[in-house]
Amino acid sequence: MSVINLDHMSANPLLPEVQEAMIAAIRENLGNPSSQHRLGERAAELLDESRAAVAALVNASVSREIVFTSGGTEAVNLAIKGVAWAKSDEGKGKHIVTSNIEHNAVIRSLRRLKLMGFTVTSVPVDERGRVNPETVAKAIRPDTILVSIMHGNNEIGTIQPVKEIAAVCKEKKVLYHCDAVDTVGVLPVDVQEMGVDLLSFASNPFYGPTGVGGLYVRRGVPIWSLFDGGVQENRKRAGTENLVGIAGMAEAARLAARDMGARAAHTRKLRDLFLSKLPEYLSDYGINGDPENCLPNLVSVSVHHVEGESVVLMLDDEGFAVSTRSACASGSLRASHVLLSTGLGFADCQGTLVITFGIDNTEAEVMKFLAALKTSVTTLREISPLYKNGQGVPQ
Amino acid sequence: MSVINLDHMSANPLLPEVQEAMIAAIRENLGNPSSQHRLGERAAELLDESRAAVAALVNASVSREIVFTSGGTEAVNLAIKGVAWAKSDEGKGKHIVTSNIEHNAVIRSLRRLKLMGFTVTSVPVDERGRVNPETVAKAIRPDTILVSIMHGNNEIGTIQPVKEIAAVCKEKKVLYHCDAVDTVGVLPVDVQEMGVDLLSFASNPFYGPTGVGGLYVRRGVPIWSLFDGGVQENRKRAGTENLVGIAGMAEAARLAARDMGARAAHTRKLRDLFLSKLPEYLSDYGINGDPENCLPNLVSVSVHHVEGESVVLMLDDEGFAVSTRSACASGSLRASHVLLSTGLGFADCQGTLVITFGIDNTEAEVMKFLAALKTSVTTLREISPLYKNGQGVPQ
Repeated sequence: MSVINLDHMSANPLLPEVQEAMIAAIRENLGNPSSQHRLGERAAELLDESRAAVAALVNASVSREIVFTSGGTEAVNLAIKGVAWAKSDEGKGKHIVTSNIEHNAVIRSLRRLKLMGFTVTSVPVDERGRVNPETVAKAIRPDTILVSIMHGNNEIGTIQPVKEIAAVCKEKKVLYHCDAVDTVGVLPVDVQEMGVDLLSFASNPFYGPTGVGGLYVRRGVPIWSLFDGGVQENRKRAGTENLVGIAGMAEAARLAARDMGARAAHTRKLRDLFLSKLPEYLSDYGINGDPENCLPNLVSVSVHHVEGESVVLMLDDEGFAVSTRSACASGSLRASHVLLSTGLGFADCQGTLVITFGIDNTEAEVMKFLAALKTSVTTLREISPLYKNGQGVPQ
Repeated sequence: MSVINLDHMSANPLLPEVQEAMIAAIRENLGNPSSQHRLGERAAELLDESRAAVAALVNASVSREIVFTSGGTEAVNLAIKGVAWAKSDEGKGKHIVTSNIEHNAVIRSLRRLKLMGFTVTSVPVDERGRVNPETVAKAIRPDTILVSIMHGNNEIGTIQPVKEIAAVCKEKKVLYHCDAVDTVGVLPVDVQEMGVDLLSFASNPFYGPTGVGGLYVRRGVPIWSLFDGGVQENRKRAGTENLVGIAGMAEAARLAARDMGARAAHTRKLRDLFLSKLPEYLSDYGINGDPENCLPNLVSVSVHHVEGESVVLMLDDEGFAVSTRSACASGSLRASHVLLSTGLGFADCQGTLVITFGIDNTEAEVMKFLAALKTSVTTLREISPLYKNGQGVPQ
């Protein structure tokens, strides 16, 4: 069965040009960029070119501010743990500020650091999922060494006021790491204009391969490696490079820089179509996130009186891929911490679908999906003890 | 200029079958193995199959004992730091035993841990580069939590008595990590027969892609993740997987399991040819390592009265790729810690070449190389103040 993919957040398809760049790197049989002889020259050249392309995408002032990683999760872990260890080794303190709606890579990196003697303050968000920069300012203490607050949220799409948060951090002389995994290559991201010290990203959100990502580290920011060994990646990440993946990410970065606007316009059109037609297909639902500051490709909809997991499974049977949350968190039965943080009730959290559009989706697919969604929800509500005669039963 | 590669340790070419497996994974546009819907099914299946192939190569008792990593360096860092943190969190102590001839990934991981309050004892090796298991036994203290001693050395090729070291560790109830990056897929490696608790490896030494590797973690061994976030890799390594690389490593593992014996016989024949002919081409040299227990594809030769770096550059001009040491350590001007540990003098360390043969080398290439080596060394000695009238000048 051909499947209509409305879960691009889990896995974007590789662009044809990205596939070709990776295949060329495979066929070329590149050497080792660290070699002393000419067999490594082409590899070193490809690595340099790739770093320049990725640096350009986020407007790093020099290429060597980009550290290639094995993905967004590694980048986030390197940023948070690397800075925490380096700063605490300098005796600057062990306190970190974050928000209640971060990705698990951030939350669990911080949980790990707590086991190592660090302390964490997590600031709340409003009902739209926005962090207030003033709350961040109040949370910063004399022993605060790092603030880690994301750019675009992967479950509700809310864009944070990163520039304002960065200004607070700069004033308080605290380093700022921004998890921008779901915005780099999707929306314009300019590390200099934003004023961040560290910024994590991954290649797949802009149609590059999985298992590749990067971390922007502003020159002079102290950071310990997660991997010690060789002197690769400007001594910030030891180990022979994944050149095939890096070549793919670089090509994806070049294309994203060129096509990002058109892609966002396309998914925004599909998103708007979906939202405008939804009332004709569904009753009793709520849209999560911030309608004014949001990712252009994501809709989070809480369908009352149903279980999201059941909807996902029914839609899967009908050939539609959607999600209840990020793939990284799937398998967990707990309600989304992001939705709970916005004040949503437990039952509505469980009834939430995350729909992420991609450049390969069409308006016709959106219309088909709306019809399938209606059928699934109607069927599930009919068999639910929580929903009788067209309305929810008070619990 | 076509280059004769005698530096396979830096970068092995990808086998055609490995290239095809990677290209198939690229073309298939796999989903996310953690997805809740069918778009992730094929990805999850490929991941399972790949894990089984790699588990079989090292004879892990169950597939889930294999953690996929971004290479040997990550695997080593995960093993050493992960176990150190987990064991010290259990209050078992902070002392680690290693040897003087480990790879930089091991040495520098341990150096990092020292900054975090751990202590390290490094045991010496004999002139052949062998660790004595009795010395390991004596180095183990009541607060020792881990022993990390490699399998095959990447600079001199010496194979350590891993089974005997593992028996010592088992008796003393200390976990044993073995860095087997240069032996897995090259020689038979059986984690159960060896009795190791953790074993690091990489894909490129057996003609798979760079940037991919793995760590065997015996069931029940306590280990903290380097990357926290999602629940991938049996909760030992968060982050969306590099499926293209993993597919390549798995195919390389299948081929290595089948062809390892024939490959070793081929490179051993070239190695023997080189060593038997060398006296006709060169005087004043020494062969490093243990002639009885060595990698089948490596020769370390210390050419007296020359600089190895100069030989490498001259040979590069003539179309031969060789190395003075591992690519990870290139750029360093310091003498090799491995050679110094075997008792070699500083000058001889600087005159050392590491030649690593591969399945693509031929006897004719070895003969061409011998001639070129003779020319380079003769030329360099002629212009050297340390070598006059056919012999070295006492320094």
